[in-house]
Amino acid sequence: MRKKVLRTHHKKIGASPGTLVHVGERKVETVKISVFEYDAEHLTEKTPRRVEDCASCPVGPRVCWVDIAGIHQVDILEKCGGIFGLHPLVLEDILNTGHRPKFEEHDDFLFLVLKMLSLPETGTEIRVEQISLIVGRNHLVTFQEQEGDLFNGVRERLRGNRGKIRKRGADYLAYALIDAVVDGHFLILEKFGDEIERLEDELLGNPSPETLQRIHQLKREMILLRKSVWPLRELIGGLQRCESPLIAEGTGIFLRDVYDHTIQIIDTVETFRDMLAGMLDLYLSSVSNRMNEIMKVLTVIATIFIPLTFLAGVYGMNFEYLPELRWRWGYATFWVLSILCALGMLKFFRGKKWL
Amino acid sequence: MRKKVLRTHHKKIGASPGTLVHVGERKVETVKISVFEYDAEHLTEKTPRRVEDCASCPVGPRVCWVDIAGIHQVDILEKCGGIFGLHPLVLEDILNTGHRPKFEEHDDFLFLVLKMLSLPETGTEIRVEQISLIVGRNHLVTFQEQEGDLFNGVRERLRGNRGKIRKRGADYLAYALIDAVVDGHFLILEKFGDEIERLEDELLGNPSPETLQRIHQLKREMILLRKSVWPLRELIGGLQRCESPLIAEGTGIFLRDVYDHTIQIIDTVETFRDMLAGMLDLYLSSVSNRMNEIMKVLTVIATIFIPLTFLAGVYGMNFEYLPELRWRWGYATFWVLSILCALGMLKFFRGKKWL
Amino acid sequence: MRKKVLRTHHKKIGASPGTLVHVGERKVETVKISVFEYDAEHLTEKTPRRVEDCASCPVGPRVCWVDIAGIHQVDILEKCGGIFGLHPLVLEDILNTGHRPKFEEHDDFLFLVLKMLSLPETGTEIRVEQISLIVGRNHLVTFQEQEGDLFNGVRERLRGNRGKIRKRGADYLAYALIDAVVDGHFLILEKFGDEIERLEDELLGNPSPETLQRIHQLKREMILLRKSVWPLRELIGGLQRCESPLIAEGTGIFLRDVYDHTIQIIDTVETFRDMLAGMLDLYLSSVSNRMNEIMKVLTVIATIFIPLTFLAGVYGMNFEYLPELRWRWGYATFWVLSILCALGMLKFFRGKKWL
Amino acid sequence: MRKKVLRTHHKKIGASPGTLVHVGERKVETVKISVFEYDAEHLTEKTPRRVEDCASCPVGPRVCWVDIAGIHQVDILEKCGGIFGLHPLVLEDILNTGHRPKFEEHDDFLFLVLKMLSLPETGTEIRVEQISLIVGRNHLVTFQEQEGDLFNGVRERLRGNRGKIRKRGADYLAYALIDAVVDGHFLILEKFGDEIERLEDELLGNPSPETLQRIHQLKREMILLRKSVWPLRELIGGLQRCESPLIAEGTGIFLRDVYDHTIQIIDTVETFRDMLAGMLDLYLSSVSNRMNEIMKVLTVIATIFIPLTFLAGVYGMNFEYLPELRWRWGYATFWVLSILCALGMLKFFRGKKWL
Amino acid sequence: MRKKVLRTHHKKIGASPGTLVHVGERKVETVKISVFEYDAEHLTEKTPRRVEDCASCPVGPRVCWVDIAGIHQVDILEKCGGIFGLHPLVLEDILNTGHRPKFEEHDDFLFLVLKMLSLPETGTEIRVEQISLIVGRNHLVTFQEQEGDLFNGVRERLRGNRGKIRKRGADYLAYALIDAVVDGHFLILEKFGDEIERLEDELLGNPSPETLQRIHQLKREMILLRKSVWPLRELIGGLQRCESPLIAEGTGIFLRDVYDHTIQIIDTVETFRDMLAGMLDLYLSSVSNRMNEIMKVLTVIATIFIPLTFLAGVYGMNFEYLPELRWRWGYATFWVLSILCALGMLKFFRGKKWL
Repeated sequence: MRKKVLRTHHKKIGASPGTLVHVGERKVETVKISVFEYDAEHLTEKTPRRVEDCASCPVGPRVCWVDIAGIHQVDILEKCGGIFGLHPLVLEDILNTGHRPKFEEHDDFLFLVLKMLSLPETGTEIRVEQISLIVGRNHLVTFQEQEGDLFNGVRERLRGNRGKIRKRGADYLAYALIDAVVDGHFLILEKFGDEIERLEDELLGNPSPETLQRIHQLKREMILLRKSVWPLRELIGGLQRCESPLIAEGTGIFLRDVYDHTIQIIDTVETFRDMLAGMLDLYLSSVSNRMNEIMKVLTVIATIFIPLTFLAGVYGMNFEYLPELRWRWGYATFWVLSILCALGMLKFFRGKKWL
Repeated sequence: MRKKVLRTHHKKIGASPGTLVHVGERKVETVKISVFEYDAEHLTEKTPRRVEDCASCPVGPRVCWVDIAGIHQVDILEKCGGIFGLHPLVLEDILNTGHRPKFEEHDDFLFLVLKMLSLPETGTEIRVEQISLIVGRNHLVTFQEQEGDLFNGVRERLRGNRGKIRKRGADYLAYALIDAVVDGHFLILEKFGDEIERLEDELLGNPSPETLQRIHQLKREMILLRKSVWPLRELIGGLQRCESPLIAEGTGIFLRDVYDHTIQIIDTVETFRDMLAGMLDLYLSSVSNRMNEIMKVLTVIATIFIPLTFLAGVYGMNFEYLPELRWRWGYATFWVLSILCALGMLKFFRGKKWL
Repeated sequence: MRKKVLRTHHKKIGASPGTLVHVGERKVETVKISVFEYDAEHLTEKTPRRVEDCASCPVGPRVCWVDIAGIHQVDILEKCGGIFGLHPLVLEDILNTGHRPKFEEHDDFLFLVLKMLSLPETGTEIRVEQISLIVGRNHLVTFQEQEGDLFNGVRERLRGNRGKIRKRGADYLAYALIDAVVDGHFLILEKFGDEIERLEDELLGNPSPETLQRIHQLKREMILLRKSVWPLRELIGGLQRCESPLIAEGTGIFLRDVYDHTIQIIDTVETFRDMLAGMLDLYLSSVSNRMNEIMKVLTVIATIFIPLTFLAGVYGMNFEYLPELRWRWGYATFWVLSILCALGMLKFFRGKKWL
Repeated sequence: MRKKVLRTHHKKIGASPGTLVHVGERKVETVKISVFEYDAEHLTEKTPRRVEDCASCPVGPRVCWVDIAGIHQVDILEKCGGIFGLHPLVLEDILNTGHRPKFEEHDDFLFLVLKMLSLPETGTEIRVEQISLIVGRNHLVTFQEQEGDLFNGVRERLRGNRGKIRKRGADYLAYALIDAVVDGHFLILEKFGDEIERLEDELLGNPSPETLQRIHQLKREMILLRKSVWPLRELIGGLQRCESPLIAEGTGIFLRDVYDHTIQIIDTVETFRDMLAGMLDLYLSSVSNRMNEIMKVLTVIATIFIPLTFLAGVYGMNFEYLPELRWRWGYATFWVLSILCALGMLKFFRGKKWL
Repeated sequence: MRKKVLRTHHKKIGASPGTLVHVGERKVETVKISVFEYDAEHLTEKTPRRVEDCASCPVGPRVCWVDIAGIHQVDILEKCGGIFGLHPLVLEDILNTGHRPKFEEHDDFLFLVLKMLSLPETGTEIRVEQISLIVGRNHLVTFQEQEGDLFNGVRERLRGNRGKIRKRGADYLAYALIDAVVDGHFLILEKFGDEIERLEDELLGNPSPETLQRIHQLKREMILLRKSVWPLRELIGGLQRCESPLIAEGTGIFLRDVYDHTIQIIDTVETFRDMLAGMLDLYLSSVSNRMNEIMKVLTVIATIFIPLTFLAGVYGMNFEYLPELRWRWGYATFWVLSILCALGMLKFFRGKKWL
C-alpha cells in the first residue's frame, strides 16, 4: 500500500475553526502516556492511565516531560488542552497529522510541529510521522502518532544522567528531541546516497528499464523529502531567533548546531536532486546511443545484402533471351561483382565511422 | 465548452477609470440579496428585494452581513457603493471577474477579492468564481457571481450559534468565509493527488497516449492553480500584517492559521508540479525504451534473414554453369550454412545483450 | 519585414553624452503638435505649427497638455528642452527609441518612458512604439513616434468633460495615458490567449509542423513581451512610491489600480510561457508516439514477411537434389508452414501489445 | 587559437598576497604612457618615456589623466603604486588580467576594474581586455593591456573641447571612459542580434548541422558575456551609490544614465539566451519531424513491396505440383492481386495521414 | 574506490550532543603536532610529542601557531579543548569530517571549518579534506585530517620572514591559510577548464560515448564543487563582516580580496555548469543528426532496391503463360525499367534534400 502524497484535513468546509477532529490513519490502539519528572539528582518515571494524573505537571518544581503516544482520542487531547492551557487551534494542529512543520510562539508556551521520517528496512518509501511539542516554562509535552523508538536515546540519557541533560531545563530537553528528529534525516540520506551510487554504477555498466524506474522513484522521494526539510529549517531558525524567556541563554549554541545540521540536510537533498537529474539525462543519452548502434547494424546488413539479393533475383529470371546465363564465367562473375559491391559498401561505412 | 484562460476587461481603451461595466459571463438571472444581523443573543435573517433596504446596515448596533449573489446588474452595485461608501475603483474591481486576488486597505473598510475554486464531479477543469469582501467596522458585504453552497457552513454556524462566531465581530465573520474558500482548495488538491497517483500507477503499468494527455492537462491545471494561490498567500499575509483597527486583536491568531494553510497549499501545488514534470520525463523515457525494443526485434529478424534470402536467391539463379546445383549434398550444405549463419547472428546479438 | 529585436543606439563610441541623435526608423513625415489647455470649465484645443507657440504652456494657470507626434526632428526637441527645462540626457532618452521603459524623478518634472504595444490585424508580431511623458507642475508633454489612436479615448474624455479628468491636474492626465497604454497590453494578451487555445486544440487533434512553428513564434513574442512588461511594473511601482509634490494625493489610488493591472499582465505572460512550454513538450511527445507507431507497422510487416520470403526463396532454388519439390503435398505444406509462422508472429506482437 | 575560458592567477599557492606578478599573455612589446593635463582653457598632451615623469600629476592644479598601455612590466606598476599611493593588493588586481569587474572605495581614490569587449571583424569569439581605473581627487590613472582605439573618442573630445568634458573633473572623465566601455557592449549585442535573426531564418528555411553548431557557439558566447555584464552592473551601481567626495554631485545623473544602459544590456543578453534556447528546441523538433518523414517513406515503400516480393517468390518456387502455374490466367491474377494489395496498403497509410 | 558523496555523522541517534567520536576514514597513523612561535624578529619551530607541551601557547607574548595533523585520536582533541578553552560542540565539529564549511564567532576565539580540495595527478575525482581553524587573540590552532603540502608555502614565508606575515598577528596568519585554501580551488578550476575545452573540441570533431560519460562526470564534480564553494563564500563573508576584536583592522582589506576570489570561483563554477549543460545538449543533437543520416542511407538503399527486387522476382516466376519472358527485348526492357525506376527514386530523394 502506498502512502498518500497529500494528507489533508477533511473537516467539513465551513466548520468552526478549532473543531477537534483527528485527521489521518489511526496507527495505535490505545493511547499511552509516559511521564518523566527530574532534576539533577532525582528522576521519577510514571505511566499514568489517565491524562488527568499529569495535572500537577506544569506547576511542579522539577522539569516534567509528558509524552503522549497516540492522538486519535480527541477527549484526551481536550483534557491536555485544559491542563496545559492550549488554544483550540493548537489542538487542531496537533490532531491534523497532515500539517506542515511549523513553530509558533504563544504567551505561555512554544508550539512546534515536526515530521519524523523513517525508511523501512525492506521498502523504499519514506514513512512520515508527525510529532508535536509544547515547550512550557518547566514542562514539555510531546504528542506522537504512535510509540516510536526515536526518543529512546533521550530517555536513556535521562535515566543514566548522561551529559548535561538532567542539569538543564525543558528547553534543552526539547532541543535533544529535535536533534534526534534531525539526526533521523541523516540516516535516510545515507541510505539514499548509497542507493544513488549503486544506481550510478549500474548506469555506467548495464542500465535497464528498472534503473530508470528506480531513479524516478528516488526523484519522487527527494521531492517529498524536500517538502519536509525546508519548513524544518524555517522552524529551527525561528526557534533560534525567538527571544522567548522560555529558552535559556545557554541553549542557543545547541540550537545553532542543529540549525547547521538542517542546512547540511538541505544541501545534500539539493545535491541528490541535481545528481538524479544528471543520471536521468545520462540514461536517456545512453538509450539514444544504443538505438544508434542498433540502427547501424541494421543499416549495414540491409544495405550490403539488399542490392546483392536484387542481383541474384535478376539471374533467377526466366527470360528466354538472357545472354549472361549462358556465359562460361557468368556465375564466377556474379560472385566477383557481389563481393566487390559488398567491399565497397564496407569501405563506405568505414569512411562514415559506422564500423 | 472550455473556460477562458484569460478573462480580461473589455472596457474601451481610454475609457474613464471607475466606469462600471460588468466583465465576464452572466451566471445567474436575478440578483439575490440576503442579510444576517446578529449579536451573541439574537439573529435576524432577511432576503430583501432591493439593496436600499440594507441602508441601515452599516450603522446598526449589531453585526450585519449582506450577501449579494449576482453582480451583473450595475445599478445595484452603484447603490451599494452609495450605501457603504465605496470608491468607484472598488466597484470596478468587484464587477471585473477577471481580477487577481488582492487586498486593499481603505480608510473605512478593507477590500478583498478572492477566487473560489471548484471541480465539477465529472469534469477535470477547475471552475473559478470571484468573491469580493468589504469588511467594515460592524458590517460585512460579500459579492458572489452566483449563489454557491460554499458559505452554507458559515450560515449554519451563525444560525446554530456554534463556536464563537456569534460572539465576535465582522472581522471574524470575514475570516470564517476566507477559511471556507481556502478549505475549498484542499478538496481540489486531494482530487488531483488521487489522480496523480492513479496516473503514476498507469505509467508504470501500461502507459498510453491518453496518459500523456492527462498528465499534460494536470500540468495545465497546476499552472492555473498556481496563478491563483500565490496572490492568495499575499492577500492573507497582507491582511495579517495590516494594523487596521477594523481587525480585532484576537482575530490575528486565526489569520495566522489560515495563512499556514495557504502555504501548505502552495507547497502541495509545487510538489505536484515537480511530480508531474517527473512523470512526463518517465513517460518519454519509456517511449524511448519501447522504440528501442521495437527496433531490436526488427533488426534481429532482418539481419538474420536478409543474408539467408540472398543465399537462397543465389541458388535460384539460372546460370547454365552453376556447379553447386549438381552436387549430391548441395541442398543439405545450403541448410547447414544457413543455420550456422543464423546461429552466428544470434550469438552476436546475445553478446550485445539485445536478446 | 521583421522588426529588429534590438534597437540600440548608434551614437559613435566615445561621443559626448547628451548629443542629440534620433535613433530608430522615421515613422512619420512631419512632426505634428497638438495642445490642450483646460480647467473644469474651459477647454482650448490648438495645433500650432511651431513648438515655440507652446512657450506659455508651463506657466499658464490652466492644465496644459502638449502632444508631439514625430521625434525625428532634433531641433524641435532641442526647443522643447529649452521651453520645459529638460536635461540633455532626458532629450537623448526621448530620441533613442530603443530605450527600456523607465521612470526618473527630476527636480521640476517627472520623466517616464513607456512602450506602446499593438498587434496588426493580420500579422502576428507585436509592434512597439515608444512614448515619453514629461509631467510638470501644471503641464504634461508627451512625445510619440507617430500619431496613434491610443490617446483618442483620453482626448474624447477631455472634450466631453467625462469623468473627473477635467477637474484634476496634469498628474491625473498622465495617469489616464499610462492606463491607456497598460490597457493596450490586455488586448494583445487576449489575442494571444485565443491563439494559444486554438493551438492547444490543434495539438490534441491534428498537429502539424506549422503548429510547432506557431508555438515557437508565440514563445518568441512572449520573451519580447516579458522584456517589456517587467520594467513597466518597476516604472509604475516607482511612480507610486515617489513622494514628489507633482503627484496629488488623490492620484495614488489610481496608480495602485494601474499597478495591479501590470501585475496581472505579468502573471498572464508567465502563465502563457508555462503553457507554451507545456505545449512544446506535448508536441515532442506526440511526435515520438507517432514515430513509435510508424516503426511498429514497419516492424510487423517486415518481420512477418521476411522469413516467409526466405522460405519461398529456398523452394525457388534449382538444386538437382531437392527432395521436397517432388513431394505430392510439398506446396500445400509450404503454405501451411507460412501461415503458421505468420500467426506465431502476430501472436508474439499481440503479446507485446504492438497490435 | 581559442581564448581561455578561465584566465586565473598562477601565483604559487601560499605566496605572499600583494606579490606582483603579471598574469595573462603579454599583448604589447613596450609600455606606452600618455598624459593629458587640462582645464577648461588649456590642454597639455605628453607621452613621457618614464613613469617617474608623472610624479607631479596627483598634486597639480589641473585635471591629469595618465594612461598606461601595457601592464606586463612589473617595475613600472610598482613605481605607479609609489607615485599614486596604491595598496599592493590594488597593484596585484591590476596585473591579474583574469579578474572580475569590481569597484573598491579606498581612502584617497576609487579603484575600478572593467572588461572591454570587442568582436573581431571576421571571427565570432568575443575578445576581452581588462582596463583598470584609479580615480583620484584631481587625477585619473588608466591601465590597459594594450593600446586600444576605445578611448580615442574621449581623447578627441578633450582635444576639441567638445561637450562639457573639459569643464569637469576627473570623475566625469572616468564616467566618459566607462560610458565608452559600456557602449562597446551595444556594438557586440547588435552583431549578435543580427546573427540570431539570420540563424532564425535559416532554421525555418533550411537547417543544417552547421546551424546547430552556430547556435551552440552563440549560447556559449552569451554565457561568457553574461559572466561579464552582471558584475559590470554591480560595479556601476556601487559607484552610483557610493558617497565618496571624489564624485561630484553633478556626475550622479550621468552615472544613472550609464547604469540604465547596463540594465538594458543585461535585459538583452537574457532575451538572447531565451531566444537561443527556443531556437535549439526548434532545431531538435525539426530534426524529429524530418526523421519522422524519412521513416514514413521507408515504411510505405517497404510495407507495400515486401508482401508482393513474397508473392513473387511463391510463384518462383519449383514445386512439381504447383497448380496455379498452369492456370491460363495465373499471371494476370498475380498482377491483379498485387495491385489490389498495394492499393489497400496505400489506403491504410492515407487513413493514418502518412501520405 | 569512489569517494562517498555524503559523509555524515554516525553517532547513535539520541546520543548526547558534544559526544566526541571521530567520523570519517582515518587517513594517517600517528598524530603529528607542529608549533611555530614567532614575532617580527624571532621564530621558534617545534614538533612536540604531546599536546600538553603547547599549554603555554595561548598565553605567550608571541604569535603561536599549533598545527595538528591527524584528528582520529579523540583524547588529544579533548586535551586541546582544555588547553584552548573549546566548547564540546566545537570539538564535535572538528572531529566530524563530513561537516559543511562554516564560521562561528565565540567569545574568546573564532572557529572556522574549511574544505581543502585537491585533484590527484591521474584521477578525475576531487579529493576533499577538512581543515578547522581556531583563531585566538595571539594564537592559531589548525586541525588537518593528514599532513598536507598546502601550508608549506605559508611555513616558508614564516621561516624566510617574507612579506609582512611575521609582522602581523594570528588573524593575518589565518587569512594566509584561508588564501592558500581558496587558491587551491583555482588550480582545480583551471584543470577542469582545460578538460572542458578538450571535450568541446572532441564534441565538434568526433564525439564518442566516452565523451558523454566524461561530460557527465564533470557535471557531477561541478555539483559537488558547488556544494563546497557556496558555503565558503558565506564563511568568508561572515568573517569579513564580523566585528570581533580578534581581527585587526588592517586585515579587513585582505579578507575583501579573498572574498573577491571566492566570488570569482563561484562565477566560474556556474559558467562551467552552463557550458557543460550546453555541451550535453549539443551531444544529444549530434546523436540525433547522426541517426538521421543513418536512417537516410538505409531508406535510400532500401527504397531503391526493394521495388527492383520485386520486379526481378516477378520475372523469376514459373507461370506457364508469362508472355514477357518470350519477348526478344524482354530482358533489356527489364533493365531499362529498373534503371528508370532507380533514377526516379534518386531524383525524389534529391528533391527532399536527402542526398
